[in-house]
Amino acid sequence: MSTDKQIFARRESEARSYCRNFDTVFTKAVGSEMTDTEGKTYIDFLAGCSSLNYGHNDPDMKQALLDHVAGDGIAHGLDMYTAEKAQFLEAFEKKILEPRGMDYKVMMTGPTGTNAVEAAMKLARKITGRRNIISFTNGFHGMTMGALSLTGNAGKRAGAGNSCGGLCGVTHLPYDGAFGDGVDTLQQIEMMLNNTSSGIDKPAAFIFEPVQGEGGLNAASTEWMQGIARLAKEHGALLIVDDIQSGCGRTGTYFSFEGTGIEPDLITQAKSLSGFGLPFAALLIKREHDIWKPAEHNGTFRGNTHAFVTARVALEKFWSDDTFQKKVQEKSVMLTTGLQSVAEIVPGARLKGRGMMQGVDVGSGELAGDICARAFEKGLIIETSGADDEVVKVLVALTVSPETLRNGLEILREATQEATQNHKIAAE
Amino acid sequence: MSTDKQIFARRESEARSYCRNFDTVFTKAVGSEMTDTEGKTYIDFLAGCSSLNYGHNDPDMKQALLDHVAGDGIAHGLDMYTAEKAQFLEAFEKKILEPRGMDYKVMMTGPTGTNAVEAAMKLARKITGRRNIISFTNGFHGMTMGALSLTGNAGKRAGAGNSCGGLCGVTHLPYDGAFGDGVDTLQQIEMMLNNTSSGIDKPAAFIFEPVQGEGGLNAASTEWMQGIARLAKEHGALLIVDDIQSGCGRTGTYFSFEGTGIEPDLITQAKSLSGFGLPFAALLIKREHDIWKPAEHNGTFRGNTHAFVTARVALEKFWSDDTFQKKVQEKSVMLTTGLQSVAEIVPGARLKGRGMMQGVDVGSGELAGDICARAFEKGLIIETSGADDEVVKVLVALTVSPETLRNGLEILREATQEATQNHKIAAE
Amino acid sequence: MSTDKQIFARRESEARSYCRNFDTVFTKAVGSEMTDTEGKTYIDFLAGCSSLNYGHNDPDMKQALLDHVAGDGIAHGLDMYTAEKAQFLEAFEKKILEPRGMDYKVMMTGPTGTNAVEAAMKLARKITGRRNIISFTNGFHGMTMGALSLTGNAGKRAGAGNSCGGLCGVTHLPYDGAFGDGVDTLQQIEMMLNNTSSGIDKPAAFIFEPVQGEGGLNAASTEWMQGIARLAKEHGALLIVDDIQSGCGRTGTYFSFEGTGIEPDLITQAKSLSGFGLPFAALLIKREHDIWKPAEHNGTFRGNTHAFVTARVALEKFWSDDTFQKKVQEKSVMLTTGLQSVAEIVPGARLKGRGMMQGVDVGSGELAGDICARAFEKGLIIETSGADDEVVKVLVALTVSPETLRNGLEILREATQEATQNHKIAAE
Amino acid sequence: MSTDKQIFARRESEARSYCRNFDTVFTKAVGSEMTDTEGKTYIDFLAGCSSLNYGHNDPDMKQALLDHVAGDGIAHGLDMYTAEKAQFLEAFEKKILEPRGMDYKVMMTGPTGTNAVEAAMKLARKITGRRNIISFTNGFHGMTMGALSLTGNAGKRAGAGNSCGGLCGVTHLPYDGAFGDGVDTLQQIEMMLNNTSSGIDKPAAFIFEPVQGEGGLNAASTEWMQGIARLAKEHGALLIVDDIQSGCGRTGTYFSFEGTGIEPDLITQAKSLSGFGLPFAALLIKREHDIWKPAEHNGTFRGNTHAFVTARVALEKFWSDDTFQKKVQEKSVMLTTGLQSVAEIVPGARLKGRGMMQGVDVGSGELAGDICARAFEKGLIIETSGADDEVVKVLVALTVSPETLRNGLEILREATQEATQNHKIAAE
Repeated sequence: MSTDKQIFARRESEARSYCRNFDTVFTKAVGSEMTDTEGKTYIDFLAGCSSLNYGHNDPDMKQALLDHVAGDGIAHGLDMYTAEKAQFLEAFEKKILEPRGMDYKVMMTGPTGTNAVEAAMKLARKITGRRNIISFTNGFHGMTMGALSLTGNAGKRAGAGNSCGGLCGVTHLPYDGAFGDGVDTLQQIEMMLNNTSSGIDKPAAFIFEPVQGEGGLNAASTEWMQGIARLAKEHGALLIVDDIQSGCGRTGTYFSFEGTGIEPDLITQAKSLSGFGLPFAALLIKREHDIWKPAEHNGTFRGNTHAFVTARVALEKFWSDDTFQKKVQEKSVMLTTGLQSVAEIVPGARLKGRGMMQGVDVGSGELAGDICARAFEKGLIIETSGADDEVVKVLVALTVSPETLRNGLEILREATQEATQNHKIAAE
Repeated sequence: MSTDKQIFARRESEARSYCRNFDTVFTKAVGSEMTDTEGKTYIDFLAGCSSLNYGHNDPDMKQALLDHVAGDGIAHGLDMYTAEKAQFLEAFEKKILEPRGMDYKVMMTGPTGTNAVEAAMKLARKITGRRNIISFTNGFHGMTMGALSLTGNAGKRAGAGNSCGGLCGVTHLPYDGAFGDGVDTLQQIEMMLNNTSSGIDKPAAFIFEPVQGEGGLNAASTEWMQGIARLAKEHGALLIVDDIQSGCGRTGTYFSFEGTGIEPDLITQAKSLSGFGLPFAALLIKREHDIWKPAEHNGTFRGNTHAFVTARVALEKFWSDDTFQKKVQEKSVMLTTGLQSVAEIVPGARLKGRGMMQGVDVGSGELAGDICARAFEKGLIIETSGADDEVVKVLVALTVSPETLRNGLEILREATQEATQNHKIAAE
Repeated sequence: MSTDKQIFARRESEARSYCRNFDTVFTKAVGSEMTDTEGKTYIDFLAGCSSLNYGHNDPDMKQALLDHVAGDGIAHGLDMYTAEKAQFLEAFEKKILEPRGMDYKVMMTGPTGTNAVEAAMKLARKITGRRNIISFTNGFHGMTMGALSLTGNAGKRAGAGNSCGGLCGVTHLPYDGAFGDGVDTLQQIEMMLNNTSSGIDKPAAFIFEPVQGEGGLNAASTEWMQGIARLAKEHGALLIVDDIQSGCGRTGTYFSFEGTGIEPDLITQAKSLSGFGLPFAALLIKREHDIWKPAEHNGTFRGNTHAFVTARVALEKFWSDDTFQKKVQEKSVMLTTGLQSVAEIVPGARLKGRGMMQGVDVGSGELAGDICARAFEKGLIIETSGADDEVVKVLVALTVSPETLRNGLEILREATQEATQNHKIAAE
Repeated sequence: MSTDKQIFARRESEARSYCRNFDTVFTKAVGSEMTDTEGKTYIDFLAGCSSLNYGHNDPDMKQALLDHVAGDGIAHGLDMYTAEKAQFLEAFEKKILEPRGMDYKVMMTGPTGTNAVEAAMKLARKITGRRNIISFTNGFHGMTMGALSLTGNAGKRAGAGNSCGGLCGVTHLPYDGAFGDGVDTLQQIEMMLNNTSSGIDKPAAFIFEPVQGEGGLNAASTEWMQGIARLAKEHGALLIVDDIQSGCGRTGTYFSFEGTGIEPDLITQAKSLSGFGLPFAALLIKREHDIWKPAEHNGTFRGNTHAFVTARVALEKFWSDDTFQKKVQEKSVMLTTGLQSVAEIVPGARLKGRGMMQGVDVGSGELAGDICARAFEKGLIIETSGADDEVVKVLVALTVSPETLRNGLEILREATQEATQNHKIAAE
């Protein structure tokens, strides 16, 4: 089957983006491989931007979904009670919350990450009666007006045009490492907050990503995260951890902040929550904060029943014990090793991120883009990240086989070699 | 199968709402009927709040989805090109746009109505360089900060707490009929806009729903809609029609404004767009307004491939000729007749809405709630609408059989009779 | 003495305005007459935009000020206690508050009207914990960001550039008569406020001018003012009366709302408060609302001691009994009669305003401007008002002699005749 | 003459503040001395918060004002041309602008510092089409909504209640030295501005005080000011210097930034601009930025003619050559020496500020308050400054005699000794 791509140019908005870099028409996908209409197969190091942590079309989730649909299971039920929602909640309780000693309520927000973030913002402001939310440089939290106000990226913010509207009520402070290794931003943030003449209004909440997916794979240190958690407590603010991209096992544990001892008041989840790439998002709310009135935040698709089905399977299959987690951590080591050999090719390149959310800062967006373009020609789907798109980012499925991971890294190495060579020549 | 409902109380946020009125656990649904875990079957006069215009689990969409999933079709592909997206766009072009002489680009926003609204707001502000957006009393456009700023409902707005943030940059003006039959709000809106000292800043856009789904089934007259379209043009503002609840055939034509001659600059679509109840939303953009830069508005789930599959089937099955449309219009007449007999029961009750988006204003939220509760006990799922929940609203699937429609209306009539009787007794 | 006007073009900002219409250099002024450096004398029908209600250089105030300065009285004392402040407060208590049964605290805001308005806004928001303030079409309340947000005029608002900042948190609703005689805006405002889905957030306050000085001399009816006062009470909002231009006797009583029975929570005063044209403003605060913390709103010049001296004399001289008030009311009748004969000249012209705050709406800004320009050539200083500058406005000193008033009106009549003639010819 | 202070408690708003610390009623003032109704005389080390740089009732200004008033000179002329305004502008051009090679237009804003700041904000936003203004920790710029948004102090900001309104559109960044001596805030600010994902929107302007009068007498280094000026230029933003408290000779030169080489786009002036303590403020606008339309920012008292008279005398008397400036610089040295001996008394105390704008940070607001209270009892009027009121601040008139300066410092030394002693005892 061959598809005419002209329809996209003719009818799809100019806002479309990934398709510009991966200029082919996909039609099938299994595990870490995607196939286009020409029959060409690609290794997928993007994994739906971390929405496909368990790979494409996992057979167990697929079968459960087929059974559900074939049996006329509910596709859309607003937020009514369904057997599938019950089973998802039970699995989430048993596999995720209870083993970690976490007592949270699950709020089904609209099925997008940005909606979970908006719900978190609203709830924090409602609880505290304050308006100001502190977010951090290079943070990315979504594109609707509230979430966009938290987002650092100027290009994204520009999409809002002349609209103070959603973009106020937020203070952007420096993330861990924002001023280089020598500067302790936590201490400065503390000084700003303790100075009653700093102009920083008392915060309703702090929100951060433990690893910044879009912002360049910056990973906050445990000490910094603990410090922010302490400041939030001291200043009567809520701590919101945005685990949309970094959660669901991506960094090696289910939540990316496990092991730090911090206890977020609110946790946003989306992307890989359904396990299958279906739209699904949730806000985890510490029990005492669940002061919503019925429907005070609602949305038509807040109970995506198909997603409940696959999400439940994902939880049972991968999080019933620590087998999966251990394998992921092993692959993280492979990834680090592989990326080190990539980084060695580019003078001044640095490794970024942690777990299965790592990449290489090659110093320029142009070079990083060239590497990804060459990789794609060689059959590898991979993207950049960072304020200047200067980081080549690996977000391969956590279920990737060691062999596929190795093959993908090899393509990446070759592409990097060629691109670097080419840039040297161009510079001479 | 019987499911323990305690899990919902234990783990689902207090924000949950519909499930409170329909206190049972659903497990299957076909056409206009839903079945719970006890085996009890209900007629569905809610249809996912207009997200299931073609009923539950339409067999053709279901089969197409089963085939897609079974064949390892893409579940999640970000906004990459897929064969399924191409086919959806082609069907949308041929079945919807071309026959209506409409030249619009399709923007895949995040798969929720609120996201399409936010994209529309941002684009209007970006295009005009203005900030102010004019929305209307009783309008409902979503729950994320931007869309919420357009929404009239005080309870919904209260969810944002102390957050001027998203709630400014909007002027709320009276909808058609807001001051009763004798007052021409259009003329007043025009005077406000023409008075350079009115304090109403030059608008970036006007946004309205042709029929207000949540606001009480208020239907704007053709003249009013034409007047707003004219004002938008005169004042250099964009016209945004929010057709999320009223579109996809709900009022008898694909778009709810067909036949008025107005040409919106932007049209929001969601709810029944996938045809199957799957999360899917789009913003239709008049070609000349598609000035987005790539990824200037993006979102992880903006290409829900499963939804493309079912949406394409829905377009081909129902909108290839005017057969479906005619049948819907016939059923609308049945619905009007049925609701008239309901309205006659309640002193002072009035019919609201048009097409398959009609209801009865029974004058009090308490009475309307009682009617719906009694209907549910009798096997009918139906909800209220309006600022005070005073309208009993019918949003049955457009594919409902005449018999089921009749049965549902009969239940509604009985429930109304009992509730009205009961309220009389209580009042005496 | 002749002064070179080039210095103004060379060094004074383009923001300068009145001087453009009255293109001469003034050097002396007594009562209702101003003299320029050429020795030409003008009748002053502008009176510092109502800042000189007692005329220029009233001899008693002048003597008191000379004595004060000669005796090294305090010129600037921040808000420290001074004998002069005590005497002013005592006079204000005895001559104004006590006879009217009003128990208000006097807040010395910065010495400009806009500052008093800002203080009122802040206090209303602080007291109610709400943000929204309702102001009215054609209202003018000042040019600093908060007051500007209340101001309707688009040209003034444009001065803030791209600054949502100060311009949000306000709802502009139609003033009495805004939609013509047949439409009861009060009833509509009530419907908007009672409709919980109108999108109008619960107000912290309502603010209006009983007669709109800049907005076109629109005078609210007693019923409308009473209605707004009632609505404020019902909705838990404060009532702010902006009496900056309409107060200090301008409409025939000290406050412009006397006789309506309304009891504003906050009253702004400025312009003629000093009696002598010196910068001075105050916010009158109903005793129970005076919840300011020390210096929570402050300002360097909030105790203009020279103004205390003259203001005290003004109160004692003009407000010790009702003699002055009665004379003002007599002159108002003369003014009405005079303006009627002016209005008769212009087809379709209408009288506007009340008391000594009246004018003629001549239907076009161009004609009104021409009338004022011709008047100035004939020795009369007079200005326009209204959204389109279409009202010729008389703000003569309340102390004007009947003869001067008559002479001024005669010049106005002649100028109107000529201008109208000229416009007719131009139109033919 | 003795005045009953009860009138203040009875009728003046609780917002009153200075009078609480200086609990007596003043009636006369000459030079650096104020006299109360009991006949007690105080040395004035507050000088109207820098509004009386030339002392109270300077004999030459006083005589000029007496002559003006006696001769029926204009008291209030809106912004019409007056001989006095011409003479002021000519003096300002010849004595201030031309000798410094500065080509600025003078905008007569409302006669308060906050109004000049608001005008600057509006103009910067109008010119750049941007909204964000960058101000700095511990900055104080005024109390109206726009200026308040620039102000860091939480207590002042709290006065605005729940009013995002005026308080958004501003980014507060760390002033020079905000994080201690070792941290280069300029470099960090530059990193934030150059990082396109920092969330700091492109600024319309930077605004800072060269010495922070209210914020604790923090004095920016020349390098830091030059750096901010450079950043403004690089980022297309305007540079606004707020010289309201630090200008008019206070730091030893007419403008406080003289000698740094920076050329602000906008300069705010107020406080001592009239020379006599009369309300007067102006915005100096680089010629090319004077794009105001007539009356786009206006105000009733924007031409305080009495202030023009005294301001002109002040310019001619003190700024015709460098005699005054040199004397001020000599006194600054005396002040430094005196304050050093004060600082030595308090363990850990540090000198702050520069020129005649110096003080001692005694480490605690309680101690500083006690020192000032004891000083007042001994006949010295002096106030605190800083986020915690921890700085004892000297703002004596620049015309103070060496003897009075010495006497005042001696009282301050004694008060400090006693207070420190007392605090030691209390601590033991």
